[in-house]
Amino acid sequence: MKPAVVLLSGGLDSATVLAIAKAEGYETHALSFRYGQRHGVELEAARRVAGALGAADHREVTIDLAQFGGSALTADIPVPTHRSAEEMTGEIPATYVPARNTVFLALALAWAEVLEASDIFIGVNAIDYSGYPDCRPEYIAAFERMARLATRAGVEGAQLSIHAPLIALGKDQIIRRGLALGVDYGLTVSCYQPDLDGVACGICDACMIRLKGFAVAGATDPARYRAGARQ
Amino acid sequence: MKPAVVLLSGGLDSATVLAIAKAEGYETHALSFRYGQRHGVELEAARRVAGALGAADHREVTIDLAQFGGSALTADIPVPTHRSAEEMTGEIPATYVPARNTVFLALALAWAEVLEASDIFIGVNAIDYSGYPDCRPEYIAAFERMARLATRAGVEGAQLSIHAPLIALGKDQIIRRGLALGVDYGLTVSCYQPDLDGVACGICDACMIRLKGFAVAGATDPARYRAGARQ
Repeated sequence: MKPAVVLLSGGLDSATVLAIAKAEGYETHALSFRYGQRHGVELEAARRVAGALGAADHREVTIDLAQFGGSALTADIPVPTHRSAEEMTGEIPATYVPARNTVFLALALAWAEVLEASDIFIGVNAIDYSGYPDCRPEYIAAFERMARLATRAGVEGAQLSIHAPLIALGKDQIIRRGLALGVDYGLTVSCYQPDLDGVACGICDACMIRLKGFAVAGATDPARYRAGARQ
Repeated sequence: MKPAVVLLSGGLDSATVLAIAKAEGYETHALSFRYGQRHGVELEAARRVAGALGAADHREVTIDLAQFGGSALTADIPVPTHRSAEEMTGEIPATYVPARNTVFLALALAWAEVLEASDIFIGVNAIDYSGYPDCRPEYIAAFERMARLATRAGVEGAQLSIHAPLIALGKDQIIRRGLALGVDYGLTVSCYQPDLDGVACGICDACMIRLKGFAVAGATDPARYRAGARQ
């Protein structure tokens, strides 16, 4: 089996990507980050997902992005709530973490190089997160070009690939894909401000997009939501 | 003054780059890493250099690259010694740290984004470190292209620049440049295996290159070397 590094946040998208990488026959090495996010419950979710989907290995890297500030996810800036799909698009939201995907992909590249893996999977999505610069296809392509020049393997001719299988999918399509692959979305946490026991708020952008995705997919979200918050 | 992020290791090259950025009129924000290297004396050197060269700020980010292994600088692999310039070139040395410059530049990009800085300085050199894939001009150019797509500023039209002013210089030229700018190289540590008090071994690749550079530049290296080790 070919090894692949899979970025795993504990959310719905990256769980689906881990299932896709497994279904494509890769030996999956899951990588999560403790990067100063206000909630740690997503890391617990990542551990559950890695176990359930049979990852060969799961590493958690601590890196203090919060010391740079600049995001509602790591600094004392309110998380926006109750926004429509239209309000979420067209501008970069407060929940954007500066250069986060670049930092995460760089660390995935470091691990891939040691594992002699030529494949990195990331669950970015250009549809629902159209305001995030580092979720766009042109960004992923540019990272891949850079990564092919950055490493020992690249110098020796290996063609490193950054796989972003969700990049052009709507949330409902992602959910249908994951359900077909047997992903238990009850293990995942998408909420930007969950309770300490992982119960989702139901009103932040991530919850709104997720709930709408399940509704459009005609499925029931097994995640736990605060009483009265569920749409 | 325009802000710039300057990667600062505590070695000779990055100290010179910090002096260059200052001379070009930037307000310098120095960034160092505790990445699992076996010696911490280079971080003490970085603090001294940042202070001596008037950096506006100096941050130290801890990131455990050692957990991935794969390098003589972070794992239990011997540092090569007594090698000639010819032996050092043409292959990637054991001291290469997987994807290190990509990880460091990614974090510099994160800080630059928060600072609203469009300039990042790095002391890579393609002459003396010709075996390192992530010290080549084509790699730096590819990182810059990726970085312009990665951030909020890039989306809004800012042109982020990665400055690598030493990339085509020999060590002697770097030293002459730094001496002309008043860099005190006695504050810097280049050695891959210094004593705990910062005394250099004189025989690893970094020491060999440094000592030869000072000799060619017709200058005296103010660094401390182990008795008998000095060329």
